Amino acid sequence: MKPIVAITMGDPRGIGPEVVVKALSREDLHQVCRPLILGDPLILRRTAEALGFRLKVAEIDEESSLETPGEGVGILPLSRLLLGKAPTEVAPEESSRASFRYLEKAGRMALAGQVEAITTGPVSKGAIARAGIPFQGHTEFFAGLAGTKDFVMMLAGERLRVALVTTHLPLNEVSRSLKEDKILSVVEITGRSLMEYFGFPNPRIAVAAFNPHGGEGGLFGEEEKIISRAVDRARGKDWAVSGPWPADSLFHRVVQGAYDAVVCMYHDQGLIPLKLLHFDTAVNVTLGLPFIRTSVDHGVAYDIAGKGIASPRSMEQAIIMAAQMALRKRQAPILNGQKT
Amino acid sequence: MKPIVAITMGDPRGIGPEVVVKALSREDLHQVCRPLILGDPLILRRTAEALGFRLKVAEIDEESSLETPGEGVGILPLSRLLLGKAPTEVAPEESSRASFRYLEKAGRMALAGQVEAITTGPVSKGAIARAGIPFQGHTEFFAGLAGTKDFVMMLAGERLRVALVTTHLPLNEVSRSLKEDKILSVVEITGRSLMEYFGFPNPRIAVAAFNPHGGEGGLFGEEEKIISRAVDRARGKDWAVSGPWPADSLFHRVVQGAYDAVVCMYHDQGLIPLKLLHFDTAVNVTLGLPFIRTSVDHGVAYDIAGKGIASPRSMEQAIIMAAQMALRKRQAPILNGQKT
Repeated sequence: MKPIVAITMGDPRGIGPEVVVKALSREDLHQVCRPLILGDPLILRRTAEALGFRLKVAEIDEESSLETPGEGVGILPLSRLLLGKAPTEVAPEESSRASFRYLEKAGRMALAGQVEAITTGPVSKGAIARAGIPFQGHTEFFAGLAGTKDFVMMLAGERLRVALVTTHLPLNEVSRSLKEDKILSVVEITGRSLMEYFGFPNPRIAVAAFNPHGGEGGLFGEEEKIISRAVDRARGKDWAVSGPWPADSLFHRVVQGAYDAVVCMYHDQGLIPLKLLHFDTAVNVTLGLPFIRTSVDHGVAYDIAGKGIASPRSMEQAIIMAAQMALRKRQAPILNGQKT
Repeated sequence: MKPIVAITMGDPRGIGPEVVVKALSREDLHQVCRPLILGDPLILRRTAEALGFRLKVAEIDEESSLETPGEGVGILPLSRLLLGKAPTEVAPEESSRASFRYLEKAGRMALAGQVEAITTGPVSKGAIARAGIPFQGHTEFFAGLAGTKDFVMMLAGERLRVALVTTHLPLNEVSRSLKEDKILSVVEITGRSLMEYFGFPNPRIAVAAFNPHGGEGGLFGEEEKIISRAVDRARGKDWAVSGPWPADSLFHRVVQGAYDAVVCMYHDQGLIPLKLLHFDTAVNVTLGLPFIRTSVDHGVAYDIAGKGIASPRSMEQAIIMAAQMALRKRQAPILNGQKT
């Protein structure tokens, strides 16, 4: 059986509906998973019409028909926003609250095992907060729902996977945030995830240094000592971990095949090479949750919503990766000789 | 007339002699310049023999024969270190002092207009300092010799050129080093150099942001305000300057052809994408000096010296770029309607 991937439609006012429609119009995507849209049926239908796509959307009932949505792509109707308006003309508060409802439902379904993975469309953090819902972002929300604090943001493309120790933090505050335990945790979650979801029985993980030239023995900074201690503690598991490596020459070696993932100390350290190699095909993956979650690597892009010009590539890749991860997770316990 | 490029041999104990021999054995290199080696004739000859290269080295006399070295590659003999020993067995102090002598002579010759450009082989800062010579590095030495403080380190490859606002500094100290005047100076030197040496009559310069997502309006840091002010002040010249741009998506656009160079705030911001695209073909260029100076992008690599496995690609590219810059400099005043 193909895994069920819950796809949240994202903010109705953004490009989410468009990239969902475009992505799900691809035949090959249905060969790797059974997509289940969490969103607004009318908005999706209107979006498909406006784009000239013949995507058939079948409303389904959670209790009875999750497994057999019948003809067309199954959608769980979680809002009915349109009242004769264009999708992008929906009131911001309604739209934001609906976008939150989709992802909240997705999280609950994944926790309950009703779906094997979640792929999320773009929402606006600010807009959801302005609609009165305390919300820091998908990742934090899912982590809170699952009761875990140890989650990792990974950006994954075909040639490069980067896991981030710190994410949306002023660069000047990163140094004081680099804690040995945190780095260790990121390495371990990355290692386990590579085994469980990415098909690497013995992953090779490179840990990037923080300073230029890896600090050159303390001449250009001391953070490498902390990183070194974390790397030492992370050894002796099923993965091979090494570092801290000077970041400037590291990614070349990764692309040559030397490592399966890089643990990066700060956002741009990982995202500069990632986006250079995989500009619109990288997928944002949250590791460490009790379920699989991938995401598009872009925002709501209100400025181009409704224009039909949004690229669905990131959404396509995110769905495909979620499905692959779900399949590998099924096989992983056998492959690795582990218990589920 | 082809430009004379002075090539310093680098530390005799490192891979400098090897990469010089290998690079100068390429025929096409002699079609773009007249190379003049500043180094040790016997060491170069022995190195060529050991590698099986038939590089003919002709000792020349500065006063009489700089313009016509006769047959073979001209070398100005600045040391005679070998006494029956292998090149890598020379005493460290002698070797380091000699390596300093080559680059000191190169600087003086360039200042005097005897050569049109300098390409430097690798030396060890530490080894030169231990030999009793106060030395912070090639760039600082040349700047001191020329009496300038406004120089810029640029790393240049075919698809990407990055100019650095800060270089070998702990990353945690970069924030407080980002001054408006300094950023402005780097943009201006980069702009002028792109016009003078790189053949861009109206260069397009992108300035990178410091924080993730460009600080997202102050949410993740404030350094972008300083950068913005510098960018504003740099406008209205012969170049188009823009920024600060979020660094993660910027380099993709550069590679697509949107900009001729990127001004980066810290070492790895520029060197991560540069080395990913141009691992062993990037050239280190010092801008802002009164003469042209390029350099290999690697160190002495004592560990592989004498093994014949060092790649000459960076040296080749550095010499070729120095020659191209010299030719463009000759044409620049005409092209741009400027005075020399």
